[in-house]
Amino acid sequence: MKLALIRSACMSLRAHQVRPGSRFTGFSRRCLPIGITSSRLSLRAASATSSTGTNPKLTGNFGVVFSCRKVVQSTREAIVTLQKRNPAIQPLLAILQAGEDDSMLEINKKMAVKIGLNITQICLVKECSEDDIVEELLKLNDDPKVHGIYLHLPPASITSRVLNTLKPEKDIEGISDLNMGRLIRGDLSKGFVPPLASAVLDLLENHDAPLEGKTVLLVGGEGPLQLAVQCLIERSRMVTLKSHWSSKSLQEQVMQADAVVLLDVGNMYVPPTWIRPGAAIIYCKPALEKGIALYVVLTAAYRTQNVVRSCSRWLKGQEYRPWHLRSLKLQPLTPVPSDLEISRAQIPKPVDQLAEEIGLLPEELEAYGRSKAKVRLSVLERLQSQPNGKYILVAGITPTPLGEGKSTVTVGLVQALSAHLKLNSFACLRQPSQGPTFGVKGGAAGGGYAQVIPMEEFNLHLTGDIHAITAANNLVAAAIDARMLHEATQSDKALFNRLVPSVNGVRKFSPIQISRLQRLGIRKTDPASLTPEEINAFVRLDLDPSKITWQRVVDTNDRFLRKITVGQASSEKGQIRETGFDIAVASEIMAILALADSLGDMKNRLARMVVGTSRSEQPITAEDLGVSGALAVLMKDAIKPTLMQTLEVRPVHINHTNPFNVKAHCSISIFIVTEAGFGADIGMEKFFNIKCRASGLRPSVVVLVATVRALKMHGGGPNVSAGAPLPREYTDENLSLVAGGCRSNLRKQIQIAHLYIFLKIANCKTDTQAEIDLVCQIAKECGASDALPCNHWAQGGRGCSELAQAVKEAASKPSDYQFLYNTEMSIVEKIRTIAQRVYGADDIELSPEAKTKTDYYHQQGYGSLPICMAKTHLSLSHMPDKKGAPTGFVLPIRDVRASIGAGFIYPLVGTMSTMPGLPTRPCFYDIDLDPVTEEITGLF
Amino acid sequence: MKLALIRSACMSLRAHQVRPGSRFTGFSRRCLPIGITSSRLSLRAASATSSTGTNPKLTGNFGVVFSCRKVVQSTREAIVTLQKRNPAIQPLLAILQAGEDDSMLEINKKMAVKIGLNITQICLVKECSEDDIVEELLKLNDDPKVHGIYLHLPPASITSRVLNTLKPEKDIEGISDLNMGRLIRGDLSKGFVPPLASAVLDLLENHDAPLEGKTVLLVGGEGPLQLAVQCLIERSRMVTLKSHWSSKSLQEQVMQADAVVLLDVGNMYVPPTWIRPGAAIIYCKPALEKGIALYVVLTAAYRTQNVVRSCSRWLKGQEYRPWHLRSLKLQPLTPVPSDLEISRAQIPKPVDQLAEEIGLLPEELEAYGRSKAKVRLSVLERLQSQPNGKYILVAGITPTPLGEGKSTVTVGLVQALSAHLKLNSFACLRQPSQGPTFGVKGGAAGGGYAQVIPMEEFNLHLTGDIHAITAANNLVAAAIDARMLHEATQSDKALFNRLVPSVNGVRKFSPIQISRLQRLGIRKTDPASLTPEEINAFVRLDLDPSKITWQRVVDTNDRFLRKITVGQASSEKGQIRETGFDIAVASEIMAILALADSLGDMKNRLARMVVGTSRSEQPITAEDLGVSGALAVLMKDAIKPTLMQTLEVRPVHINHTNPFNVKAHCSISIFIVTEAGFGADIGMEKFFNIKCRASGLRPSVVVLVATVRALKMHGGGPNVSAGAPLPREYTDENLSLVAGGCRSNLRKQIQIAHLYIFLKIANCKTDTQAEIDLVCQIAKECGASDALPCNHWAQGGRGCSELAQAVKEAASKPSDYQFLYNTEMSIVEKIRTIAQRVYGADDIELSPEAKTKTDYYHQQGYGSLPICMAKTHLSLSHMPDKKGAPTGFVLPIRDVRASIGAGFIYPLVGTMSTMPGLPTRPCFYDIDLDPVTEEITGLF
Repeated sequence: MKLALIRSACMSLRAHQVRPGSRFTGFSRRCLPIGITSSRLSLRAASATSSTGTNPKLTGNFGVVFSCRKVVQSTREAIVTLQKRNPAIQPLLAILQAGEDDSMLEINKKMAVKIGLNITQICLVKECSEDDIVEELLKLNDDPKVHGIYLHLPPASITSRVLNTLKPEKDIEGISDLNMGRLIRGDLSKGFVPPLASAVLDLLENHDAPLEGKTVLLVGGEGPLQLAVQCLIERSRMVTLKSHWSSKSLQEQVMQADAVVLLDVGNMYVPPTWIRPGAAIIYCKPALEKGIALYVVLTAAYRTQNVVRSCSRWLKGQEYRPWHLRSLKLQPLTPVPSDLEISRAQIPKPVDQLAEEIGLLPEELEAYGRSKAKVRLSVLERLQSQPNGKYILVAGITPTPLGEGKSTVTVGLVQALSAHLKLNSFACLRQPSQGPTFGVKGGAAGGGYAQVIPMEEFNLHLTGDIHAITAANNLVAAAIDARMLHEATQSDKALFNRLVPSVNGVRKFSPIQISRLQRLGIRKTDPASLTPEEINAFVRLDLDPSKITWQRVVDTNDRFLRKITVGQASSEKGQIRETGFDIAVASEIMAILALADSLGDMKNRLARMVVGTSRSEQPITAEDLGVSGALAVLMKDAIKPTLMQTLEVRPVHINHTNPFNVKAHCSISIFIVTEAGFGADIGMEKFFNIKCRASGLRPSVVVLVATVRALKMHGGGPNVSAGAPLPREYTDENLSLVAGGCRSNLRKQIQIAHLYIFLKIANCKTDTQAEIDLVCQIAKECGASDALPCNHWAQGGRGCSELAQAVKEAASKPSDYQFLYNTEMSIVEKIRTIAQRVYGADDIELSPEAKTKTDYYHQQGYGSLPICMAKTHLSLSHMPDKKGAPTGFVLPIRDVRASIGAGFIYPLVGTMSTMPGLPTRPCFYDIDLDPVTEEITGLF
Repeated sequence: MKLALIRSACMSLRAHQVRPGSRFTGFSRRCLPIGITSSRLSLRAASATSSTGTNPKLTGNFGVVFSCRKVVQSTREAIVTLQKRNPAIQPLLAILQAGEDDSMLEINKKMAVKIGLNITQICLVKECSEDDIVEELLKLNDDPKVHGIYLHLPPASITSRVLNTLKPEKDIEGISDLNMGRLIRGDLSKGFVPPLASAVLDLLENHDAPLEGKTVLLVGGEGPLQLAVQCLIERSRMVTLKSHWSSKSLQEQVMQADAVVLLDVGNMYVPPTWIRPGAAIIYCKPALEKGIALYVVLTAAYRTQNVVRSCSRWLKGQEYRPWHLRSLKLQPLTPVPSDLEISRAQIPKPVDQLAEEIGLLPEELEAYGRSKAKVRLSVLERLQSQPNGKYILVAGITPTPLGEGKSTVTVGLVQALSAHLKLNSFACLRQPSQGPTFGVKGGAAGGGYAQVIPMEEFNLHLTGDIHAITAANNLVAAAIDARMLHEATQSDKALFNRLVPSVNGVRKFSPIQISRLQRLGIRKTDPASLTPEEINAFVRLDLDPSKITWQRVVDTNDRFLRKITVGQASSEKGQIRETGFDIAVASEIMAILALADSLGDMKNRLARMVVGTSRSEQPITAEDLGVSGALAVLMKDAIKPTLMQTLEVRPVHINHTNPFNVKAHCSISIFIVTEAGFGADIGMEKFFNIKCRASGLRPSVVVLVATVRALKMHGGGPNVSAGAPLPREYTDENLSLVAGGCRSNLRKQIQIAHLYIFLKIANCKTDTQAEIDLVCQIAKECGASDALPCNHWAQGGRGCSELAQAVKEAASKPSDYQFLYNTEMSIVEKIRTIAQRVYGADDIELSPEAKTKTDYYHQQGYGSLPICMAKTHLSLSHMPDKKGAPTGFVLPIRDVRASIGAGFIYPLVGTMSTMPGLPTRPCFYDIDLDPVTEEITGLF
């Protein structure tokens, strides 16, 4: 089989050879096909005529020449069309051969050059092994620049393994099993017609006498190519008859046929006298004989056509296309089961399939297990010419400590937009911190029938991004303390010798050190040329231990690390100091991840991070510590967004609400739903003024989430705290508390958003219809474009399809979005603007320390950074127990700090904990793993 | 096409219908095929005879009946054979249908039942969408219990997408493109022959008159099935002729044929009178007419045969098989480039391919990016009946602080064993800590041409196992301090109410709490029934702050965390205490990961971990803290080994030298090469007496690695320290230092191993031949089975193929391996045995604290645990600067600790740092990332 196959694949077409004056038994007439030259240079499909002369006519050649010209012409035109779509594209034919070029290969190469293909030739030795071939094939398969692979190998080398290693998309010979199956079934949208078969068909179709409905006799040959030829002929409405070289009635059959295709010719021969006048005859011979022949040229032309076709398909695959997203059906149960049960009842779609359905290319995906994948940043480049999608922000009113379900709304809305309104849309969520997952709050995958699945994967390590942040953050911390110790215990010379050691007798600065020298104003690159003063400046960061702002982090709720003393072991020689740990997501590196728009931008931001100030008040950066390159290395994968799915198989990107997610699948018809943490005063304000400023993207619609529970609290209801049962005010109808909450906090939050706003009321079992109606009514009075209750938690996307419809309509209107402040205002003015216009404060009051710092930042050139307020999320004011919409207060600014790498100034309003604690009975009490089924219980 | 295809797929065979007395123009003879009954119940391939009677003979039925019986019989036998190999196997046919059962389906179900198949039916509604079908198909594809899928759907539903969603391995109809291609090419080792085609061929082959070399006329039909039939007929050495229903010469052709196969019959009809006497005629009709027909039965029988064939293939795929490992060629350069350049020059094989080549099933793999994957533990179950492989341990002499290259030897040896000796073998390495990677030592991927690739993936986050350890370890720490705070500030009642809260009016203990109650001897399950004393015992762990042994960890060299004070924030109410951080790999959880042999074992060990003692001297465990389930959840993926590859594509498993790696690919012919840290006195002793005891595996051979540099140090050479240039003694030839080192440290380490030992000298540029010869000579005098220099660093596997040969021979001999001590000895006796027989000490001396602890552990029942000495690795003694083989010393045991979860006692000998520091110029100065190419520099 293999032999037959490859011979077929490399087979060439030649016309019947002239043997003037031959005689055959049983046949009395001498008959010569026309169009045959004695030089063999222009053999072709010949038309037998009734001519009895011995001088064959030469006109028949023109048929092949004409076909060749046509193929060459149309292929060239196809390349021009491709290059109009993508000027950088260049179709490339790879030839994998064993041994030197032969004349057959020469013809193919000449044809490829003539048509304008690039060629790459991989020449293996004649005796190469199957492994050698497979290895080269795999490389060619993976090389996106190669569009077609021509295996010019001895038949014995084209084994089943070789054949099926060949990527079907690049199998321009159409000989792999899959492509052969496609051809047989007649699906040519993906496979390729073998060039020889194309050539045969071309000659038949362009025969002088139309052959439609006529009989074509196929003689000899076996194997796939013969079947391919037969298939194509029959599909062209000719009738095939099959015969065999050994058939006794061959002569009779040949004489009756309107066309004869002689396959696998070898030494076999059909006398010209057998051919009926006007009939076409095509010889296919397995090897090229001496000289150049037109039939080989025609086959070569079809080969190039296949390469260009492959290139065109590849280019089409690269382009943005509407999603063909297959939904998973949701059949919500009543009562709603636990989050984990719901998550487990739905089988997630394999992430590679999901990626394919939303138009990601296989090479853009890095799977992490079966249901998560990193998306490579190269997708940004591929889709750079696409317009931006619609940007929908889900924000909330000031929440109770229990949270008001914004993630659930985000997931539910995206399920409604896509599964029910059939709009391409995806959600951007942040990776949840593991601290709360094991602490009091539980996970952050949404809930009920609006969840990211599998929720245990989402809530646990995910793709390790927060772990990477922890590792990077703590490397900086270790570098700070170690550096202070080394500076305290070594002379300038010793430090310099160690920092710039002689390696094999050569001393040189590393690139990171050269950056530091440049910041110090030292323009030297030879370590030997530094003066002692310069050495002193270079080796001593001279960090002031009391002015180190960098904290260590862990992704655990570990309250005992809030304030600690480090360096107490004797090996640290008394260099003790007070410091503390934050929760990992509070690291500046997390903020950088959320704001960086490329690997380069992230690296620059990491290098710029200020970790403290020197005794001479100079800011000291991560790059001064020499650690910035290592940080970029640690973070190189974390910057890639993670792809997951919701219960109804909408894609979810998880990457700390990184703006380039938005670009990643952008199209005018795409909706990106993302979430801002806490109340609109906290999350949304920062989202608008920092994130949107950095990304250049503008929100189209804001969906504000409110719960009757939170509104009642703002209306004057008693305290709500985690772990304790809800007071009766919250479980019984109480319209006056609801109205109070709506007219205070809700009204204010709607004002803050000043965009199209849809109030979404997350339904709760105990909410009454009257309460819900009241909220909707007041919300519209307060300026919300619409207000709708919804029930995605119990019903999935269907539960908020009305909201989705409203969002869709609003998003189609132009947005008049404006930043709240101009960054060129002074730091104090910016803070005041936020305090007055967002929080409702009368004024702000800076502590002396805050004042000093503000001046220092202006002096260091940080004055034009945006502001990231560190204020409690439990009140619009700085006082967590003031609910509703407090007024008449002055916002105290205790301190002002700067995240220079992330690029913002953050004033501290009152005391803010950056390290949560564990309650007496943390979530972890209920979390367990069944070691046999591997099922997890207790996550929510 | 689709229509034609599906009709073919569902087509049934029927013989020509009797029309007695029919007359046809142009044909004068009346001819009736025999074997035709008027009841239509037994239609078959008929033989036309010259009989002119009107009563057809009935004998012909027996042909079909016989064929059916044969197929049924052989298929049943195949099932018996399968079940002998695997008694649990049960071939399962899945039927995916739209609408109710029809009679055709009934026949198929009856046949399946008769043969002994299980059936599962998925009935969709008649109007089901393509998405519905695809979704069900994907589930069937993924279900390992389903061996064959029969699509009983309307032709229009079997679209190209449906057809090619169907997994080719389960496509028992042979209709997917790939299977059709395989059939056409004649490769039936993977695809399936369509059952109808099998039936046609069966009838032809069992025709009364042998048809070999005879002419079979195929009439009508188009599409894949017809081509499949044609292919098969030709492969059975019959000659096919094709004709068409509309052919003018049909009658003539039929009359000449030895057999006629009438495809796609519809309403067409061939008069019996056309048939030549003795010729076979087979009608294929697209739909079943009334009643049960034998041809349908025969097709159904072949369908079941395909299911059993598929099942058999699946079972074979599950079984262990020799590897078909494709090597990557190594072309070492001189001088040897940097590790990173070498790593980058080799394109790693995609990890899914690697997994396939070493016999892992796709469902056992969880890819993490393209070059790493987790292997699921289900592989252990699948291969449980396989015998163990050969276990080769790479150990070292007492090293210099620079390390002596054991990882490199491990990788080099495995490259030699497999690429050059063609033995299945793999390396087990530990995931490197990121501390040293960014500190002073660099990565741990091996080096030169003996590396794990891609080395940057290996050295960075890998699959996050160490991050998981960090998260789990620190969750325990946070739980300890939070619990102490809550106990200090709450009454018994308040604690109880919080620990066992009322949820919707119901109070109950979680399983973890019930475990604690049981340990306390309280056999109650109703919270209300506890007495105040029992409540007190339950809620108060009453941890003694001075006796907490649990430390926090980070995977960073952060020396300032060695000793710290925590709890200094006012929110912690004065509960300050001294504690410290270790490097993450020093966590007890890491030891558990290295020793656990299943998920259940890991979970139990995690629960048993003792974190400190109560004021009443009771050990307090992770389970007492309620955190053990959460720990298991955090560690569930870390326990799975990670698959990577070496430069020459040998598989590498990374999982902290976990013993079940060995099981994972075990076979008598497999070599597992693993590495014990530090000198043989440290790493190997523990490997033998703790790890091998836990895993039940026995080492076959020890390869001891020595360098001339380290030997010179032991012979009296000056100090070697990281960062400083090597003294001249090390770069110039010095035979007396070498001899001194060999006769002291090397001799002792050889004695310790007391197994087959191959000394491997890792070559260094400055080593002289005389030095190497001397080492080899003395090593053999000291008892090494052989001693060989090798050069894997510069040459890859080829550089140590001699060693590999020696290892192979030694491994084939029986091993007389014995444990050093019996665990039933007292703790002190066990310590003394190690000190005297391994370290060469005269005796041991326990501090009073150590003595008290030892007694306490005996009293707690921990006396029979093995011993894990915490001693410097820089000397055989406890004094790091005593090189060679010190004698005449008494080993001081400063303290004795216990890792109850991991399951060992660890005596502290002198002071040991569990937190490395950063040097003045850490590695990170040179580590950088090119943001455009994404290439990393500076890792080594």
